[in-house]
Amino acid sequence: MLIMVSSLKRIIEENNTKEGKIFDIFIQILIVLSLISFSVETLPNLSKDVSQFLQLFEIIAITIFSIEYLLRIIVASNKGKFIFSFYGIIDLLAILPFYLSLGIDLRSIRIFRLFRIIRMFKLARYSKAVQRFKKAYDIVHDEMVVFIVFTLILLYISSIGIYYFENEAQPEQFKSVFHSLWWSVSTLTTVGYGDIYPVTCGGRVFTFFVLLIGLGIVAVPSGLIASAFTKVREEESQRKRRDYGSNN
Amino acid sequence: MLIMVSSLKRIIEENNTKEGKIFDIFIQILIVLSLISFSVETLPNLSKDVSQFLQLFEIIAITIFSIEYLLRIIVASNKGKFIFSFYGIIDLLAILPFYLSLGIDLRSIRIFRLFRIIRMFKLARYSKAVQRFKKAYDIVHDEMVVFIVFTLILLYISSIGIYYFENEAQPEQFKSVFHSLWWSVSTLTTVGYGDIYPVTCGGRVFTFFVLLIGLGIVAVPSGLIASAFTKVREEESQRKRRDYGSNN
Amino acid sequence: MLIMVSSLKRIIEENNTKEGKIFDIFIQILIVLSLISFSVETLPNLSKDVSQFLQLFEIIAITIFSIEYLLRIIVASNKGKFIFSFYGIIDLLAILPFYLSLGIDLRSIRIFRLFRIIRMFKLARYSKAVQRFKKAYDIVHDEMVVFIVFTLILLYISSIGIYYFENEAQPEQFKSVFHSLWWSVSTLTTVGYGDIYPVTCGGRVFTFFVLLIGLGIVAVPSGLIASAFTKVREEESQRKRRDYGSNN
Amino acid sequence: MLIMVSSLKRIIEENNTKEGKIFDIFIQILIVLSLISFSVETLPNLSKDVSQFLQLFEIIAITIFSIEYLLRIIVASNKGKFIFSFYGIIDLLAILPFYLSLGIDLRSIRIFRLFRIIRMFKLARYSKAVQRFKKAYDIVHDEMVVFIVFTLILLYISSIGIYYFENEAQPEQFKSVFHSLWWSVSTLTTVGYGDIYPVTCGGRVFTFFVLLIGLGIVAVPSGLIASAFTKVREEESQRKRRDYGSNN
Repeated sequence: MLIMVSSLKRIIEENNTKEGKIFDIFIQILIVLSLISFSVETLPNLSKDVSQFLQLFEIIAITIFSIEYLLRIIVASNKGKFIFSFYGIIDLLAILPFYLSLGIDLRSIRIFRLFRIIRMFKLARYSKAVQRFKKAYDIVHDEMVVFIVFTLILLYISSIGIYYFENEAQPEQFKSVFHSLWWSVSTLTTVGYGDIYPVTCGGRVFTFFVLLIGLGIVAVPSGLIASAFTKVREEESQRKRRDYGSNN
Repeated sequence: MLIMVSSLKRIIEENNTKEGKIFDIFIQILIVLSLISFSVETLPNLSKDVSQFLQLFEIIAITIFSIEYLLRIIVASNKGKFIFSFYGIIDLLAILPFYLSLGIDLRSIRIFRLFRIIRMFKLARYSKAVQRFKKAYDIVHDEMVVFIVFTLILLYISSIGIYYFENEAQPEQFKSVFHSLWWSVSTLTTVGYGDIYPVTCGGRVFTFFVLLIGLGIVAVPSGLIASAFTKVREEESQRKRRDYGSNN
Repeated sequence: MLIMVSSLKRIIEENNTKEGKIFDIFIQILIVLSLISFSVETLPNLSKDVSQFLQLFEIIAITIFSIEYLLRIIVASNKGKFIFSFYGIIDLLAILPFYLSLGIDLRSIRIFRLFRIIRMFKLARYSKAVQRFKKAYDIVHDEMVVFIVFTLILLYISSIGIYYFENEAQPEQFKSVFHSLWWSVSTLTTVGYGDIYPVTCGGRVFTFFVLLIGLGIVAVPSGLIASAFTKVREEESQRKRRDYGSNN
Repeated sequence: MLIMVSSLKRIIEENNTKEGKIFDIFIQILIVLSLISFSVETLPNLSKDVSQFLQLFEIIAITIFSIEYLLRIIVASNKGKFIFSFYGIIDLLAILPFYLSLGIDLRSIRIFRLFRIIRMFKLARYSKAVQRFKKAYDIVHDEMVVFIVFTLILLYISSIGIYYFENEAQPEQFKSVFHSLWWSVSTLTTVGYGDIYPVTCGGRVFTFFVLLIGLGIVAVPSGLIASAFTKVREEESQRKRRDYGSNN
C-alpha cells in the first residue's frame, strides 16, 4: 500500500519522471478541452446532439478531475496544507458546483489551473525565462506602483476636465464624471472605441493636451520593463564573467 | 500653549511619527471620499435622499478641511510662506468657494491635494522610485522638448495634407485645417475614434505614410524613457560598486 | 555547353557579380509588378482594356518565371535538393496553377518569393542588421514564448469576464465566449474598432482593470526587444574592444 | 556699403549675436502667425471683416518675407549656392505664388521654414539632444530599413488574407486587395477607426494571428530606439570617463 502511494506520488506530484510528465500533460490537455467545451456551450442555438455530447464530455472530465483531486489529497505529505493551498482550493471549486447542483457555474475557474503549466516550465528551458520575468518585476515593482498612482490621478483629472467641456454639448454621452471616466480610460489607453468622443472645440483641445501627456504615460511601462530586463541580463553576464574569472 | 502648538506641529507637518501618519492617512482618505462624492453629485436623476446625504457629507468635509487649513497656518514656522505656497493656495481654493457661495465650483481642485501623497512616499520605500523618475526625467528632458517640437510640426503638416486630400470629398468632416488637426491628433496617437477618417484613395495613401512615420514617432518616448532608466540604474550600481570598493 | 551552364549559374545563383545583381533585381521587380497586377485584378468594375492588358502581362510574367524556374533547375548542382527546397516549391506553386487551369489562384504566394530579397541583403550592409535581428530573437525567444502563453490565458480570462457582465445587456454583441474573445483581442491590442464594447457599469469597470493589466502586457514585447538589442550591441562593442586589445 | 552688408550679414545669418537672435525669433514668430492665418482662412463661413484682416496680414507677411529673401541673397557669400539650397528654394516657393497670382497655394510650405528653428537649437542646450537623435538614428538606420521592408511584406500578406476571408461576406467593405490594404494599415498600427473590420469567423481568427505578430512588429521600433539611445548615452559616459582619465 505504502509503495503504491509513493509511486502514485511520483506520478502526480513530480514531473521529472516520464510518467509524471505524461500525467501532467494529460491533465493540462483535459483542462484546455474542458475550457473549450465550456466556451462552446455559451453559443446560442446549439443543436441537441452537440449539447448532449458536451454534457457527456463534462461528466467524464468532472469524474477525472475528482479522481485527480482525491489522489492529490492521498499522496500529499501534509494533507491540510494541500487542501487550503491556492491550487487545492481552485481544484475543489472547479468540481464542487457540479455535485452540489448549484446555480453558480465555476467551471471557468479552471483557467487558473493552467498556471500549473508553470510547473512544467520549471524543468524545461523556460524556467530561466520565468525567473527573468520575476527578477525584472522585482526591479520595477516600486516604480510601477508610483506610476499607477499617478496614472489614476491623471485619469481622474482628465475625467473632470472633459466633463466640464462636453457635458453641455453631449448630455447623453458625458452624463456624469463616471461616464467621463470611461472616456478617459478608452482614450488614454489609445483604444478609442468611438462610442464616446469630444465634439466641442474646447474638449478637443483639452483631449490634445491629455493625449500628449498620455502618450508619455503609456510609454513609461515599456521603458521601465526595457530597463529592468537590460539590468537582469547585465547582472547575468556579470555573474558569468565573475564565475569564469574565479575558475581561472 | 507653545507645547500644544509644537505637538500639533508634530502631528500635522511631520509624518514619521505614528500620530502624524494617522493624521495624513485620515486627510487623504477624506480627500478621496470628497472627490467621489463630488463625482456622484454629477450623476443625473439623483434621489433626494442621496442628494441630502452628499450635501451633509460636503459640509462635514469642508469643516474638517477648514480646521486643518487653520491648524496648518497656526503650526507653520513661516506663516506667509505656507499661505502662498502651492499647497497653501490649493488648500484655500478647495474651501473658499463654499464660504463665498460663489457660482464657481472648485472642489475638483482637491485632486491636487492628493499629490501630498508623495510626502507619504518620502519615508517609504517608494521614495527611491520617485527619485528615479525625477532623475530619468532630467536625463531625457532636452530630447523630450526636441521631440515635442518635431511632433507638433508633423501634426501640422499632416493636417494640411489630409485637408487637401479630403476636404472636397468630405466637406462636413474635414471642414478646415483645425478639423483636420483633430484627425491628426486622434490618428497619430493611434486612438482612432472613428468619427473622422479618410475615404479618398489619395487620403488613405497619405495616411499610410503619415502612420509609418507616426509609429516611429510614438516609439520615441518609450525608447527615451527606457534608455534613461537604464542609465539611472547603471549609475546606481556603479555608485554601489564604488562605495563598496572604497570601503575595502 | 558546360561553359554556358556555369556562366548561367554565375548569373542566376550568385549575386556578387554585376550580371547576377541585374538578374536578381529584374526578377524582384517582376515579382512586385505581378503582385500589383494581381491586386488590381481584384478591383470590381475593371474596364475590358485594363483586364486584357493585365491578362497579357500575366502571360508574359508566367513565361519568364517558368523559364527562370527551368534555368534554376538546370544550373542547380543538386537538382533534387533545389526542387524540394522552400524556394523551389514556392517557385513551382507560383506558376503551376496557370498551366493546370485550376480554379485555385496561388499567384499571391509569390509574395514569399520576395524573401529572396534577403539574399540581396547578404552582400550589402543590411546583412549585419538582419544578423542583429536574429541574435536579438535568439535572446528573447524563451521570454516571448512565456509571454505569449500568459497573454493567451489573460485573453481567455477577460473573455469569460466580459461575457458574464455584458451577455445579458447586449445578447447580440456578446453572444458567446467566442464573440467576447473577439472583443478581448481588439481591446487588449488597443485597436478598438468600435463594433463591440461594454455598456454596463460592471463591464466598464472590468474593462478598466483588464486594460490596466493589458497596458503592462503590451509593453512587455517592446521592453524585451529593447533589452535584447541593448545586449546585442553591447556584445558587439565588447568583441570589438577585445579584438582591438589582442591586436596590441 | 560693404560695412552695411557685413553688419546685415551678422544679423541675418548668424544667431549668436543679440541682433541675430532677435531677427531669428521675429521671423519664426511671423512664420507661425502666417501658418495660423492660413489655417483660419480654411474655415468656412468666415465673416468679411476677418477675411479682410487675414488678407491684409498676408500682404504684410509676404512683404517682410520678400525683403528677408532679398537680404539673404545680398548677404550670402555664395549667392548661387543660397538660391539653390533647400532653404533658398523653400523661401522662394513660399512667396512666389503670391506674385504670379497662380491658382496653386504653396503657403503651407512655410512649415518647412520652421526647421530653421534647429539653427536656434544649435547654440542652445538642445543642440546636444538633436545630436543624440542623429547618432541614435545612425545606429538604427540599417535595422529600420530591414524592419520597414518586412512590415510592408506583412501588410501585403495580411491584405491578401483578409481579402479571401471577408470579400464574400462584405463585398462593399473589402472590395479589393487595395481596400483590404487600408484595413491592414489601420489595424496593424492599432488605430482601428471602425470603418472596416472583419465579421466572419475565419476573418476574425486571421486578424487575431495578424495582431499577435503585429504587436511584436509595433514593438520593434521602440525597442530599437531604446537600445540606440542606451548605446549613445553609454558612449558619452565612456568618452567622459576616458577624458577624465587622460587628464590625470
